[in-house]
Amino acid sequence: MKDPAIPATMKAAVMTKVKEIVIEEREVPRPQDDEVLVKVMAVGVCGSDVHYYEHGKIGSYVVEKPIILGHECAGQVVAAGAKATKFKAGDRVAMEPGVTCGRCSFCKEGRYNLCPDVVFFATPPVDGAFAQYIKLREDFLFPIPDHLSYEEASLVEPFSVGIHAAKRTGLQPGSSVAIMGMGPVGLMAVVAAKAFGATRIYVSDLEPVRLEAALKLGATHAIHAREQDPVATILELTDGQGVDTAWETAGSPRALQSALLSLRRGGKLGLVGLPAQAETPLDVHVLIDREIEVYGVFRYANTYPSGIEFLASGIADVSPLFTDRYTLEQTQEALERAMTNKAGSLKVIVYPNGNHFS
Amino acid sequence: MKDPAIPATMKAAVMTKVKEIVIEEREVPRPQDDEVLVKVMAVGVCGSDVHYYEHGKIGSYVVEKPIILGHECAGQVVAAGAKATKFKAGDRVAMEPGVTCGRCSFCKEGRYNLCPDVVFFATPPVDGAFAQYIKLREDFLFPIPDHLSYEEASLVEPFSVGIHAAKRTGLQPGSSVAIMGMGPVGLMAVVAAKAFGATRIYVSDLEPVRLEAALKLGATHAIHAREQDPVATILELTDGQGVDTAWETAGSPRALQSALLSLRRGGKLGLVGLPAQAETPLDVHVLIDREIEVYGVFRYANTYPSGIEFLASGIADVSPLFTDRYTLEQTQEALERAMTNKAGSLKVIVYPNGNHFS
Amino acid sequence: MKDPAIPATMKAAVMTKVKEIVIEEREVPRPQDDEVLVKVMAVGVCGSDVHYYEHGKIGSYVVEKPIILGHECAGQVVAAGAKATKFKAGDRVAMEPGVTCGRCSFCKEGRYNLCPDVVFFATPPVDGAFAQYIKLREDFLFPIPDHLSYEEASLVEPFSVGIHAAKRTGLQPGSSVAIMGMGPVGLMAVVAAKAFGATRIYVSDLEPVRLEAALKLGATHAIHAREQDPVATILELTDGQGVDTAWETAGSPRALQSALLSLRRGGKLGLVGLPAQAETPLDVHVLIDREIEVYGVFRYANTYPSGIEFLASGIADVSPLFTDRYTLEQTQEALERAMTNKAGSLKVIVYPNGNHFS
Amino acid sequence: MKDPAIPATMKAAVMTKVKEIVIEEREVPRPQDDEVLVKVMAVGVCGSDVHYYEHGKIGSYVVEKPIILGHECAGQVVAAGAKATKFKAGDRVAMEPGVTCGRCSFCKEGRYNLCPDVVFFATPPVDGAFAQYIKLREDFLFPIPDHLSYEEASLVEPFSVGIHAAKRTGLQPGSSVAIMGMGPVGLMAVVAAKAFGATRIYVSDLEPVRLEAALKLGATHAIHAREQDPVATILELTDGQGVDTAWETAGSPRALQSALLSLRRGGKLGLVGLPAQAETPLDVHVLIDREIEVYGVFRYANTYPSGIEFLASGIADVSPLFTDRYTLEQTQEALERAMTNKAGSLKVIVYPNGNHFS
Repeated sequence: MKDPAIPATMKAAVMTKVKEIVIEEREVPRPQDDEVLVKVMAVGVCGSDVHYYEHGKIGSYVVEKPIILGHECAGQVVAAGAKATKFKAGDRVAMEPGVTCGRCSFCKEGRYNLCPDVVFFATPPVDGAFAQYIKLREDFLFPIPDHLSYEEASLVEPFSVGIHAAKRTGLQPGSSVAIMGMGPVGLMAVVAAKAFGATRIYVSDLEPVRLEAALKLGATHAIHAREQDPVATILELTDGQGVDTAWETAGSPRALQSALLSLRRGGKLGLVGLPAQAETPLDVHVLIDREIEVYGVFRYANTYPSGIEFLASGIADVSPLFTDRYTLEQTQEALERAMTNKAGSLKVIVYPNGNHFS
Repeated sequence: MKDPAIPATMKAAVMTKVKEIVIEEREVPRPQDDEVLVKVMAVGVCGSDVHYYEHGKIGSYVVEKPIILGHECAGQVVAAGAKATKFKAGDRVAMEPGVTCGRCSFCKEGRYNLCPDVVFFATPPVDGAFAQYIKLREDFLFPIPDHLSYEEASLVEPFSVGIHAAKRTGLQPGSSVAIMGMGPVGLMAVVAAKAFGATRIYVSDLEPVRLEAALKLGATHAIHAREQDPVATILELTDGQGVDTAWETAGSPRALQSALLSLRRGGKLGLVGLPAQAETPLDVHVLIDREIEVYGVFRYANTYPSGIEFLASGIADVSPLFTDRYTLEQTQEALERAMTNKAGSLKVIVYPNGNHFS
Repeated sequence: MKDPAIPATMKAAVMTKVKEIVIEEREVPRPQDDEVLVKVMAVGVCGSDVHYYEHGKIGSYVVEKPIILGHECAGQVVAAGAKATKFKAGDRVAMEPGVTCGRCSFCKEGRYNLCPDVVFFATPPVDGAFAQYIKLREDFLFPIPDHLSYEEASLVEPFSVGIHAAKRTGLQPGSSVAIMGMGPVGLMAVVAAKAFGATRIYVSDLEPVRLEAALKLGATHAIHAREQDPVATILELTDGQGVDTAWETAGSPRALQSALLSLRRGGKLGLVGLPAQAETPLDVHVLIDREIEVYGVFRYANTYPSGIEFLASGIADVSPLFTDRYTLEQTQEALERAMTNKAGSLKVIVYPNGNHFS
Repeated sequence: MKDPAIPATMKAAVMTKVKEIVIEEREVPRPQDDEVLVKVMAVGVCGSDVHYYEHGKIGSYVVEKPIILGHECAGQVVAAGAKATKFKAGDRVAMEPGVTCGRCSFCKEGRYNLCPDVVFFATPPVDGAFAQYIKLREDFLFPIPDHLSYEEASLVEPFSVGIHAAKRTGLQPGSSVAIMGMGPVGLMAVVAAKAFGATRIYVSDLEPVRLEAALKLGATHAIHAREQDPVATILELTDGQGVDTAWETAGSPRALQSALLSLRRGGKLGLVGLPAQAETPLDVHVLIDREIEVYGVFRYANTYPSGIEFLASGIADVSPLFTDRYTLEQTQEALERAMTNKAGSLKVIVYPNGNHFS
């Protein structure tokens, strides 16, 4: 890729302090030999972005200097380093936002999501994707077909969490699954469950609008947790047996209890949502007597190719998820919207190069 | 097996009420078509026997009428039903003490330990093995080689729990394992870990005598939990990485915490010991961030053939486990001994047909 | 289920010798304690039925006395034995046609399809389902929802072979699969691949009509093997990589070669179709260099519940498969049709109680 | 590691043409940033080295210019690149001889042995280890404990093939395995089977001296294939059932047949030895009726840490394997010995820095 038309500078939405995003002029990153430069076309706002914006930290990760947030992204290839030969300018790609070392025992065993040396977009101090351009190591870019939009491609990131949960918990085709929490991750987990062949998908949330979205995406039964007891409802729906698999995506200790108790003997529990409090009481008698398996689910690995395949195959109409759209200049507004309208804004998207509106 | 010499009556040690065992004359059971009658030669006293003896119940299982306890047993075939053709009089056998239905979905999927219709020795109201004779469905008898003693064969039962823990948690040859609690189940779990190829076996207990026994059985490092912090010690022994697998066998919430925190990223936790209290706080952040897997371990399935193979191959010298020996008439004494000398009596054995002393 | 209205006699289509089916009056079978009597409503004609009809034997299985063929069946419960409590008269059921012992090591490990003592419908000398009534052990009956027709329910049997192939070869959601041979088993294997989440399903056959059916059922690309080279076509469709999984369902050595060579490195091969000749040359260099896995697929186990779930969920419109329909009296005609029109008759169905036409 | 004492030149045993090894003075390799320079202390002669020496090629790999052979090696760290921080001068290490890309889908899924871009020692045109020094990427070096000799550490390479076979075929603790062919790979496969907990290890070969070595390493029964039929013998030893797992390591079509036919229903076959002829007839009826699984085994992945653990734990006394020892200057003699004394020379070792004799 000789003589690529890389501009010198770009606009970036920089978080300068808590609840302040400033649009700055930055140098366009120069791809190293094994990297590719991408024009960012769509970036989803994730709960972690909102959390950094609102609190300046997540657990031990603290924003100590200005940072660019955003890690659910897709775009168009602009240029590539000398040894990055798989892509050419104009290629449309989804971007897996964590670059792993490839050399530690976790990477070598196929569990690169546990790599201790990962460099992850929008995790302090690493900059993310609310910018016009971003660079990434070639092997974390994945081509997308023409009929998949950039905003759909940006969904591959939260979708990956659901796919990873399905793989971790060994979700079986033809089985039943309960998914607690219908935020964006929970909603994409519904799509993952469907993609993995679950035929009964019971979902639970406090917000009717999210439950409606879940039903459109493939859930077979929605439980309004303010009005119905999820465990009792699921047991009734399964002739008292319980479900084969349950995932907790809300980070709620109560939803976690429900997920556990809704399982059949031999069932499998996936822990996806990080609760505010670390210590959570779990019923060890149930874990042993029912011989339950519990799986921590941390990010994902090897999910992008199949995630793109599923979305490209039209497994679900994800368009109702895109409830709010903003330009790069409106990034602060996007974050505020996601922060203040958690019930209604399913997925807020930022378009750093504005094309969506052109 | 025509005209077998089955005696009409036998002696049995019957628990008539809490802390009372009476030797009674009972009819020798008549094997049905698919059953085998066995002369019981050795029965190990299990913690559950002691618990029924002391408290008259375990959880929802309540002793409501006289019951014969004992389920870790081995003996000699005496007679067999018309369709039980695999054994002949005189065959030496280990006895798997739970008869499952073979027809429910759990049985059909190979997880017969979860069969809801299991009939298990010495679980109220089913009688157990503290008697001269007992009958069992043919497919739960397993031949033992001549060089394996009956008392060793009775150990296949608690050994099975360790083997099942190893299978459940996918113990890898060449890996490291921490085992918390060195009661009889914990000690046999050490042998299971060794049989499965673990090269580093760290054990923890409060009693030095048990730790010494563990080291003789194959543990590579013993942690005296009164004097050393198990987690700190294990982290030090593993260069700060933690172990691949950890099993909690003591039913202690504190040991469970230690087991969890001693795991490396991606490690696996086996829950074997039933705590007194059901609700136990677990660190969900650790479960997710380290992507831990937690496996309930309930009894065992398909473990007897390999358990016999391991013991017959001389994988460990288990003779130091047999600390106390009694005749059938002394069954109450045996239970008292196991109840009052938990630290020192590793395994108390009852010999219903007295041969051990002849 | 007291006083059930069981008729004394019934009609049955008996194979009296090669290529001769006689309608006989037979006693209605009396269910034993653990059995259920079923009024047979639909029976699919399988290739094995046709083979017995035409040749009087399959391998070592020889028809030595009159036999009732047919094993792909569904019907309505009429009566049940004293201990068969799960069903009541009128229940609509699919029937899994092999009764296994539940006690051998294969059964206990969840691989009951390998049970050496299985009693399988229409496998000499066991009678099958071309009759008005048949009895079966309760645990091999599976309820079907009202909106699933009996003829669809009879398809669960060949569907099970595809489901078992998918499970054996670990078919991954989002992956690619090549299926060689589009007879009824191959066609239902397409549905199984779809149910398991395969997003690219390449099929190959010599008959255009079957390829068309495959495309309707969910295949994404059809290869007419008379005109196109399957391996070259699949490599071209996968950018030279090959597919993740390949199944051979035709029993053709040539198709087997194609299946093997169409695999990517690390791919998995399922052997479903039994070739006429046992010895088949396989390229061991390819098996080793590409680290291929080859799985024999023999019948199925634990497939009926999910098979019913998939069909009930409307995963595919299987109605075009039912190309030919006959009454019980026309059973010989049905077998002749299946024998002589292998290309066009996808699935021939016999209705022993004629209801389809009422 | 500042100012390391790296010499400028070294001696290397270079294969200049078929059957000609010349000792040359070469520049000592300079480690790149992520590489480590190792003083080579012991190199095992592998069958592939002998094959290149004798024929100048293996399949499509052709020696087209002078090459240094040898890839089973261990040594002492001399110096390291700026970013290679895990080792210091003097560290004793085993060396995994293939450097993989870490970025392709195979590497990312944990199957790096299938990496298409691997750079493997002594595979044309890549130089190997018959030299005083060699460099390697840091993550392919593994520390060895003091009590493990360099020659033992060099065995980790062929041992890895056995370990990988055990992992690929899911070898179960307590199970039975048949291993066909007792060359160095077969012999180390015996140790692997033992390490993985196999309790019955049946081995077969044509040479009594190899069978004796196998018995010393842990085989439980040796079959002299010139005088006994392996299949009949194994069936007799297993009460007609057959073994759980069988590995073919000799590359012999006849041994492959024996391996297949010695399997029980549901058994697993590992293909390790590359036959001269690619096409090998296999009995597809047996594969299907017994539902056999066949696994190609290509090199290994993630085996070094456990391989070192096993050998360091003293699992077997491997010293009888070291039948012939040579200096670097005698490399040609070493290759001739391995070539001409295949029956008796189990493992020929070259010591490039002569220390073994000092």
